[in-house]
Amino acid sequence: MGFSELKLHPERVFDSDPTRRRVGMELYGHVAGLPLVCPHGHVDPRLFADKEITLGSPADLFIIPDHYVFRMLYSQGISLEDLGVPRTDGGEVETDHRRIWQRFADHFYLFRGTPTGLWLNDELHTLFGISKKLTSETAQEVYDEIEEKLARPEFRPRALYESFNIEVLCTTDSATDDLSSHKRIRASGWKGDIRPTFRPDAVVQLLTPGWQENLNKLGELVGEELTGFKSFLLALERRREDFKALGATATDHGCPSPYTEKLSDTEVEAIFQRALGGQAGEQDTVRFTAHMLLEMARMSIEDGLVMQLHPGSFRNHNRWVYDRFGADKGCDIPEATEYTKNLRPLLERYGNEKRLTLVLFTLDETAYSRELAPLAGHYPALRIGPPWWFFDSVNGMERYFDMVVETAGIYNTAGFNDDTRAFPSIPARHDVWRRSSCNWLAGLVVRGMLDTADAIEMAHSMAYGLAKEAYRL
Amino acid sequence: MGFSELKLHPERVFDSDPTRRRVGMELYGHVAGLPLVCPHGHVDPRLFADKEITLGSPADLFIIPDHYVFRMLYSQGISLEDLGVPRTDGGEVETDHRRIWQRFADHFYLFRGTPTGLWLNDELHTLFGISKKLTSETAQEVYDEIEEKLARPEFRPRALYESFNIEVLCTTDSATDDLSSHKRIRASGWKGDIRPTFRPDAVVQLLTPGWQENLNKLGELVGEELTGFKSFLLALERRREDFKALGATATDHGCPSPYTEKLSDTEVEAIFQRALGGQAGEQDTVRFTAHMLLEMARMSIEDGLVMQLHPGSFRNHNRWVYDRFGADKGCDIPEATEYTKNLRPLLERYGNEKRLTLVLFTLDETAYSRELAPLAGHYPALRIGPPWWFFDSVNGMERYFDMVVETAGIYNTAGFNDDTRAFPSIPARHDVWRRSSCNWLAGLVVRGMLDTADAIEMAHSMAYGLAKEAYRL
Amino acid sequence: MGFSELKLHPERVFDSDPTRRRVGMELYGHVAGLPLVCPHGHVDPRLFADKEITLGSPADLFIIPDHYVFRMLYSQGISLEDLGVPRTDGGEVETDHRRIWQRFADHFYLFRGTPTGLWLNDELHTLFGISKKLTSETAQEVYDEIEEKLARPEFRPRALYESFNIEVLCTTDSATDDLSSHKRIRASGWKGDIRPTFRPDAVVQLLTPGWQENLNKLGELVGEELTGFKSFLLALERRREDFKALGATATDHGCPSPYTEKLSDTEVEAIFQRALGGQAGEQDTVRFTAHMLLEMARMSIEDGLVMQLHPGSFRNHNRWVYDRFGADKGCDIPEATEYTKNLRPLLERYGNEKRLTLVLFTLDETAYSRELAPLAGHYPALRIGPPWWFFDSVNGMERYFDMVVETAGIYNTAGFNDDTRAFPSIPARHDVWRRSSCNWLAGLVVRGMLDTADAIEMAHSMAYGLAKEAYRL
Repeated sequence: MGFSELKLHPERVFDSDPTRRRVGMELYGHVAGLPLVCPHGHVDPRLFADKEITLGSPADLFIIPDHYVFRMLYSQGISLEDLGVPRTDGGEVETDHRRIWQRFADHFYLFRGTPTGLWLNDELHTLFGISKKLTSETAQEVYDEIEEKLARPEFRPRALYESFNIEVLCTTDSATDDLSSHKRIRASGWKGDIRPTFRPDAVVQLLTPGWQENLNKLGELVGEELTGFKSFLLALERRREDFKALGATATDHGCPSPYTEKLSDTEVEAIFQRALGGQAGEQDTVRFTAHMLLEMARMSIEDGLVMQLHPGSFRNHNRWVYDRFGADKGCDIPEATEYTKNLRPLLERYGNEKRLTLVLFTLDETAYSRELAPLAGHYPALRIGPPWWFFDSVNGMERYFDMVVETAGIYNTAGFNDDTRAFPSIPARHDVWRRSSCNWLAGLVVRGMLDTADAIEMAHSMAYGLAKEAYRL
Repeated sequence: MGFSELKLHPERVFDSDPTRRRVGMELYGHVAGLPLVCPHGHVDPRLFADKEITLGSPADLFIIPDHYVFRMLYSQGISLEDLGVPRTDGGEVETDHRRIWQRFADHFYLFRGTPTGLWLNDELHTLFGISKKLTSETAQEVYDEIEEKLARPEFRPRALYESFNIEVLCTTDSATDDLSSHKRIRASGWKGDIRPTFRPDAVVQLLTPGWQENLNKLGELVGEELTGFKSFLLALERRREDFKALGATATDHGCPSPYTEKLSDTEVEAIFQRALGGQAGEQDTVRFTAHMLLEMARMSIEDGLVMQLHPGSFRNHNRWVYDRFGADKGCDIPEATEYTKNLRPLLERYGNEKRLTLVLFTLDETAYSRELAPLAGHYPALRIGPPWWFFDSVNGMERYFDMVVETAGIYNTAGFNDDTRAFPSIPARHDVWRRSSCNWLAGLVVRGMLDTADAIEMAHSMAYGLAKEAYRL
Repeated sequence: MGFSELKLHPERVFDSDPTRRRVGMELYGHVAGLPLVCPHGHVDPRLFADKEITLGSPADLFIIPDHYVFRMLYSQGISLEDLGVPRTDGGEVETDHRRIWQRFADHFYLFRGTPTGLWLNDELHTLFGISKKLTSETAQEVYDEIEEKLARPEFRPRALYESFNIEVLCTTDSATDDLSSHKRIRASGWKGDIRPTFRPDAVVQLLTPGWQENLNKLGELVGEELTGFKSFLLALERRREDFKALGATATDHGCPSPYTEKLSDTEVEAIFQRALGGQAGEQDTVRFTAHMLLEMARMSIEDGLVMQLHPGSFRNHNRWVYDRFGADKGCDIPEATEYTKNLRPLLERYGNEKRLTLVLFTLDETAYSRELAPLAGHYPALRIGPPWWFFDSVNGMERYFDMVVETAGIYNTAGFNDDTRAFPSIPARHDVWRRSSCNWLAGLVVRGMLDTADAIEMAHSMAYGLAKEAYRL
């Protein structure tokens, strides 16, 4: 089957039942062409800082930086070195991008039935015009075609941003980022709407490797020495203003659990001082993070930045891979995550605040119906974020709709996030969401539980409006 | 779309596949008209104590007392005061029911895709003959129509009970209730079958606000001073007899977790004495409740009352709302709930007892396939209650059938409970259950895993027989 | 309906949608006739040790040894004595197999909608040619037919093995088993491929009743006195060699949780000595088991045996039944099971080892998408085993496919295990898997997310290739 055709089914993702499919496609017709709102993701803003920047080779684009892709190959015994993933010690890795591509193509069958497979085929076909399935045999020919396209001006990031019909794209930026790329984008006069998002994890989580350096950098950026907790809070507040000045409307917080706790001024200062002295322990970092979530919610009420919480990932679970290749190498593994008790101290203080929007994400799908939907279906401050990471998939979306909406409705959700560092995958990801949500709505329509007029409004909100509104874009 | 038509699809809830729908509708035809058995709910028995009682205004009926409804509006920033929900301090709230209704109608779109939306539309159309969708524009006109109907004799509770074709309706009553409404119903000669259910939480859970007063009241009702644990048990036993004398066949127990533990006589007496002295702690109340579940199971074996367990709700999670408006205001949030270990002390003693029926409920759907179905598929004393609260919904039922039946069969389940305080929603709720169960059975039939003759018997059991049998009605 | 016809729908299990069913049946046509690979199960090897052995009476075959069957009857109040289940004290139980069969038939309706019901009807119809539904009325007639068939030579186990088209069947054998049945099978010259699997739980779990006797027996088998941990390890290594010599390719480990921990030599020796002195405590057994999982992984890397982990069952939950009837009586109840943290010590050491294959099972379906798929989608050493026990069912498989494949792909799974002690149910169980997997693949095809060529390859892998490969058969 090496040379069989790569086709995208025009009605892909929709249910097989003809009535449901017809209704779903009709709904999809209303939203397929809407601009893309991208309120949360990890695209590097440098891609847009300079109009001459290109996307590199096919391996640069599809494999080397994308942990969704190389973790699957790694799980089947292919070394990360052979895929060109850079080592932290600068040790040798494969540099022949054609050989990397060949290995990827040899194992492309691994992605059958996965969302990564769906996106990759969509990108290959829609973006690069590839018409043969990627296999061992077609690998080099496909490489040629992509390489040729990538050299064209219309494949530069700014051009793609425009042809993708992106309305706004938010990046995720460390609290210590100087935002120089964002400044250059703004200064360039280009009309693309790229905005930073304030992510302070590396200064908030006290045991982060390099925490003291991060703190120093934060101090430099605000022109203060951060010798006490008060000055630390002020520095964060000032940096949030810097981010807002460049268009930011949101913050983002990754943490092992959504545990929140109000510490006394004395306690929090004592922990901060221990951290400054290099003496903070495991318990200190847990409680400090818990307290900082309260501080961040307070700041959000004051400055209007939407707050996002991404808890429940055991980062760098595979120490051997982490030591050799660093973070974000496909070895973050989810854990059971408790929200009802953990978030209560925050919600007691700020849950009834209409000025706060706190968007909750989860990698523990059991929380959807048990905790998140009941919480968001009651507290004015809460919204449920879209299915995250492993669950940014057709089944992940179906489970999300099935488990969230009956309790919270769609209007307590936050629309879609592509949450990707793979810039060219953005249209494919939004398209899967739009198809899935229209298919789900069509299910309600054909089962007589929703009328078509309401379904059209809902499809529009899910594809576009909810994200804009939740993120104040 | 303000004035578009409100229609109920006659085949609503059924799958879109024509074969499955046809089979499902055929099964539904066998059960749609069966009388309603309502073994567990929260309808106020006062509604039936006097034949002249009416249901109040449309806002009284649909909004003010129904936390399913106002919590959704609250989640989107509408204050409970503006919805007429009474404050505990007697502070001012909206008293103009037409304005409350308008706010509800303005936000009725929030219920799209929710079971509350399904029930409300069913009630509006089937019960009140409303033929326009409820929107900002139609709000007052719909109010007029409902108000006019509610003034008619056929809309009084007893008349509705009869026209709803209810066979039996069990209320939920505190152990300290004097059951005067139930006595008046019996004395009135009305033929409706309204029965109390014995719910002793407020005397069993030692840290309940007002526990001492509750205990005093319990003592008064049995004419004893409850100065020791033995007298407390005797009082409960006597009250159970009072409930039985008025038709009760069941007890109900709400508790944070299904933890059970056998305490020694000394321990339990010591805790009880601490409670009497106002000195009971958090741990005391946990262990006392755990022990009391064993006592209640013992009593059930002795007096034949079916025992229900409703664990896993974090009550009054939103302290601000609780302080201002009291309990049952839509801010009870589920928690992960463990049954396998927690119930073992009870099951070791009484799980093999055929005389005991213990109906288990859950707000943690992960327990269905992992714990509840294996437990009920083995222990003679156990039955699994229907999907509860947030899961009394089309998807909630589908998940329940999918996760429970393969292991436990349907004959270890307890049929349906409407579990509602919204009396006029009862037919709509039973109807969703009957449609969902027939649709699920139809799925088995069309996939060749069940024959039609068996499916018809099962549909009948699920709609009617299982509830009657499990609750000994 | 007593005498209605027992039919097996030729397209059973497949979705009702005609397009999906057509595609599914086409895929099924490619795999329905493939030989059965049975890499994990509990069939007694004595069945094949002698060509004259027969399967006993219909009650011997279908009821008395099958806890899937009698636990359901027990849950509805039928005593195990009345079903002929032997008591540990040798007390009287029903010996009239026709009366046992009648009780089974009287309650056969309990299995409606369950996988056991599907398998039993498949066995009755396909294997025994029964054409009437089993009911109270047909019970004795059906008994006659089965009894008559069981007396025929073609119903002896070896003959059935051949007519079932089994390619290889692995049993599960204690580390202290002398493997005499396996030796007799090999010596007999019969060409059936029956292999042992090394299961050392009864010597590894220190609080197992009879642990010291088990240890003594292990010592005898290797001709050593096991007075220290080192000699214990060596004994296990030698026994693994004995198993390999008789064809074993795998080990199996049942444990309450997948907790792993590296103990120091001193610690582990101290625990082992406490166990020898009869002084090991609960904590000792937990840590010793945790350490032994590491040792077993190490041995697997050295000797190439595939390692299986079956955690999360609370064994013998019903003490009364256990005391009266012993283990494996349908009262093992699952518990929540954590893998991400618990397996980390093992994965840190061996997770990147391509020589290791560790097949993970679960009774906690929440782990599929949250932990198991992300783990297996990253670590080279891991595979996810098929849906286990209660989840060896149509819905169990659908949930498994839906929750596992998008993250891990199918190539990080281990195909199918029938995992049964009911030998004649093997073809029915594989058939449900093959139908379910083809139906699931058909769903992807008709939704345009997979092409037919890929689906055919995947169907073949799922039915046959993945199990062979994962288990190195």
